[in-house]
Formats: sequence, structure tokens, C-alpha cells
Amino acid sequence: MSKLRIYVDFAMPPEARELLQKEAQPHELAFSRPSGGEGADPGLQEADVAFGQPDPQALAEAPSLKWVQISSSGITRYDNEAFRSAMKERGIAVCNSASVFNEPCAAHVLGFMLAQARLLPRALQARDGFGSDEWSELRNGCVDLREQTAVLVGYGAIAKRLAEMLAPFSMNLVACRRNPRGDEGMRTLTPDELADVLPSCDHVVDVLPESEETRGFFDSQCFTKCKPGAIFYNIGRGATVDQGALLSALQSGRIAAAWLDVTDPEPLPADHPLRSEPSCHITPHVAGGHRCEALSVVRHFLSNLNRLAKKEPLQDRVM
Amino acid sequence: MSKLRIYVDFAMPPEARELLQKEAQPHELAFSRPSGGEGADPGLQEADVAFGQPDPQALAEAPSLKWVQISSSGITRYDNEAFRSAMKERGIAVCNSASVFNEPCAAHVLGFMLAQARLLPRALQARDGFGSDEWSELRNGCVDLREQTAVLVGYGAIAKRLAEMLAPFSMNLVACRRNPRGDEGMRTLTPDELADVLPSCDHVVDVLPESEETRGFFDSQCFTKCKPGAIFYNIGRGATVDQGALLSALQSGRIAAAWLDVTDPEPLPADHPLRSEPSCHITPHVAGGHRCEALSVVRHFLSNLNRLAKKEPLQDRVM
Repeated sequence: MSKLRIYVDFAMPPEARELLQKEAQPHELAFSRPSGGEGADPGLQEADVAFGQPDPQALAEAPSLKWVQISSSGITRYDNEAFRSAMKERGIAVCNSASVFNEPCAAHVLGFMLAQARLLPRALQARDGFGSDEWSELRNGCVDLREQTAVLVGYGAIAKRLAEMLAPFSMNLVACRRNPRGDEGMRTLTPDELADVLPSCDHVVDVLPESEETRGFFDSQCFTKCKPGAIFYNIGRGATVDQGALLSALQSGRIAAAWLDVTDPEPLPADHPLRSEPSCHITPHVAGGHRCEALSVVRHFLSNLNRLAKKEPLQDRVM
Repeated sequence: MSKLRIYVDFAMPPEARELLQKEAQPHELAFSRPSGGEGADPGLQEADVAFGQPDPQALAEAPSLKWVQISSSGITRYDNEAFRSAMKERGIAVCNSASVFNEPCAAHVLGFMLAQARLLPRALQARDGFGSDEWSELRNGCVDLREQTAVLVGYGAIAKRLAEMLAPFSMNLVACRRNPRGDEGMRTLTPDELADVLPSCDHVVDVLPESEETRGFFDSQCFTKCKPGAIFYNIGRGATVDQGALLSALQSGRIAAAWLDVTDPEPLPADHPLRSEPSCHITPHVAGGHRCEALSVVRHFLSNLNRLAKKEPLQDRVM
């Protein structure tokens, strides 16, 4: 394969940069200019490949571009009809880095589910022991996940990995996705059918990406259909939830607790009412995080670069 | 089978008591007298069966006793040579309720492991978002359990269930038990050999019961052999740990974090130094707790009562 010009605007620590510089050879790297320049970054204008979070408009206009590797799992900025058609028309492949983040994201939800089942936020604050009211409430409030029902809304690689992690609990799992494929290994509904199953779900897991179709998907109508005392989790995108409706559902007790890694906006302001709702637990969009994360993203890019060279199908191709 | 006299001192809510009264028929129940009476409780003196937490001395002296069902998993008060020989000599079967508590205890440890791996205690307190120091530390501090090593010290039913729950992570699991049986499905060491493996363990899980052999088992020598940055968990018994040694190990960073459901004493006093150690996370002996716990304990007793009637082997027999 001829020498490629690779435009890089992925922000990374030195060890990841060194790995990229060493392993991308013989290709030529062009790191993005410091922000603030006017017009399109010349490095991107000349690039065959772009890696990071490049500007969608500039990508659509880069004349020799063949492949874009987005460094995140989410692709909200690129996920629209105009960008998709521009890429399709010009035969440009677009990949995200989903497979880097499946494992930590699924583990984060499992952590949420067990922290809730074992009432960890309250138990870790408890000071009274055996026989006290606090102790009895904690002991009797813990929940056995076995035979409970969970619906995974947005059934992609993260939800699939979560289902694997939940297998030892023999839960009743239901998937919900736009286009059921029949290979999900569990009952699978379309979003239109979700309301049929919500009244029997103990756990509702939002793994939706953000798009025009999903914005505000979890609204008051949706929460009203939930099983009283259901637990709601969001590691998809904050904008997929009507947060006012969620707050009301928590206040009324319809939803017994919410565990959110994503909110709208991020970070959620300190005085946002969800912050002071005791049954709402928020982490600051860290579900995909893991030790040496940037190295994983660079390795994923290098693996796809290798596939490109060998004309093999790219991993995590989304367009 | 002839009508048995069943002495009951298991403290339970009305619905569990009703279940017991209904299902124990045609046998005769004698509930314990209110505490404070002198000498042995007459109900126990006449009993064929005892259920709850009866006084060990009184059990040894009850003339017609055939079977004792302890309502807990732990049997510290009964686990001594004198009591064991008294039971053996008189042919009295003793069971604990371990199988009622395996599931919640294993889930509690898994909850601890994931809360640690995903840094939940800190992440749930975080207020800063994308790009902040706090956010970067959280994202980069999260740990992938896959391919990490955990040793399960005290390999009984709880550890076995924990190993099942951890299977999706393909961790490197090592068991440690007094009498390896060869059916553990993983490398199994005796307590004497534990030191050989500690330097390579990312997770050390204490599931030891309390006995003369196990008291103070995790001492400073033990912690010194641990892998720097290892995580220590205890859902066994508090007295199996030298808490001063644990505190030093946490302060030096040798042990990066401890997750304890049991302590010595319980509850741990508010001014105990482990309470103010930020890397020490304590829940108040609730690992075995679950919704309708007393009903589960009663059902376990009734199931064993049925086995006794059919002359089948009793479940969870410990003596």
C-alpha cells in the first residue's frame, strides 16, 4: 500500500503518541494545529485518513479522504443524513471506537445494578449495627437479581456484553432495538413495542445513542408505564431522557432509583434538582473510562490501519 | 414420622412465623420464652428439634434433641471441639443456613469488586465534567477485571458462587482452603501456600469463618506479601483480620483499598481509624441480607424438616 497521510486530532498522553508514531510507520502523521486557526486545518485537507474527533464539515470537504476513525463510541456530531450521504457518495469509510468501550461501559452498568441491589450508597454510610432500624432496612431492602426482568434499550455491543455479564444471574432479559436481527439470543422488541414490556421490567437500561429519533425517548409517558419501583439506568446519552419527567418519576416513587452516567448538560449543574434527589446517583460520563484508555484507542486505530492495508473489513464501521 | 417437638428461637416477622406455623404441622412448635428467664428454656429441654440461635450449652444438655437448624450461615458460637464432640456423641445433626446466604453474599462481593473497579464511591461524588482533573483521574483510574487475578480465601459455597458470577470476566481465580478437594475447578492452595500466590493477586477476598485457626489470619506479614495496590475484601468474619495491620497497609498504599462487610467489633465505633481512612469502605454486616430473608430461612428449615421426615440427607449439614 502506498504511504498514507494521516491527520490526527486525538488528544493523547505521550505514551499513546509514541506508540502511534512508532507503529503508524511508514505512513505520515500530521497532527492537528493548535485550535484557533482560521478555515480548514491544512493537515486534514491533504489527508487520506483522519483519526480523532475531526470537524464533520471539514471531513466532507477533504478531497483525498478515504477513511475516518472516530476516537469515541458516540458519533452524535456525525450521525445525520447530510454527513452520511456525503461519506457514502465519496466512498469514505467511517468507524467509531465502540469495541474499545464495550467492556468498561458494560462493567459500569453491572456496577450500578449491583450497587443498587446491595444498597451500597446507603450501606457505606451506615454507622449502626445488628438489630438497629437502619441495619434491618438495609438487610431487608437488598434485592436478589435472579429471576428479575431487565430491558436493554439500544441493543448494540455494550448491551450484548452486559447480557453476558448478567448470565450467571439467569435474569429475564429483553432487548429493544430499531431493527431486530433475530440473533440477539433473547426476546427482542422494536421501540414501538417497548411499552408492552415496561410494566413488567424491574430494570430499564438506556444504552441509546443520541439522534433525532432518540432525543427525549424516555419521557413521562414512558416512565408512567414502568413497573412501580423499577430502577432506571442511563449510560447511553443524556439527551435521550426527559430529565424533568425522570425527576417526577423519582419523586413519586414510580422509579425507585436512577443511575446515570450521562446527563444533559454535562456536567449537570450543582444546583440541578436531580443532584439533590437522594434516589438519583450520577457519575460524570466515565463509563467508558479505563486505565490506559488512550493506548486502547490508538491500538484500535492501528489495528484498523492494518486491516485497511490488507483490504480486510474495518472493525466498528458505522458508515 | 412421629410428631416432633420443635423449639424455635429464630426472631422473625409475622409472615415468616405464619408460614412456619402452617407448614410445620403436624409437628408441635414451642417458641422460646422472652429473654431473661433463669436456667434452660423448658421448651428446649423437651425439644426433638431446635431452630434459630439456641444456646450451645443448653443444646448439649437437651435430652431428646435429634437435629439443630442454625438460622445463620456463621456458626462461630458452635464451632468448637467441645460442642462438636457433644453433638457427635449423641448423634445430633447440626445444620447451618449457608445456602440461604450464598447468593446475596457473593453478589455483595461482586458489587464491592465492581464499585472498586469503576471507582463508584469517588465518581458518585464528582461534580466536575469532561476534561477536568477529577474526570481524567476517574476515567483513567477505572480497572478492567479481565485477566486480573483474585484469590478466594475460604473456598466454600459463597466463594464458589462468586466464581460463577466472575466467569464472564475470565479472571485468573485461585482458591485457598484447608482441605483442597480437587473439584474446585481452579488452582487450589492450602493456607500455608497462600503466601506463594499473594504477590501476584490483584484481589484478595476473605470469606473465612471465625475459628481458632482463622483468628487474625490476615496479619501484617500477610499484607506485606500482597501485590502493591491489591484490593482486600472481607465478607467472612471481622476477627479473621488484624485491623491494625490492615490500616497500616492502607496507609502505606500496599493495599490500595479495602471493602469490609464485617469488622471487629460490629458496628465499628464511629471514631475507629478505619472509619476515617478514605480507602476503606465499610458496610454493616449486610452481605447476607435480602428481601424476605426470614421467609427464606424458614423455607430452608421446612425443606430440611421434610428431608428429616423422609430420612434424606439434610442440606447444609455442618456436624
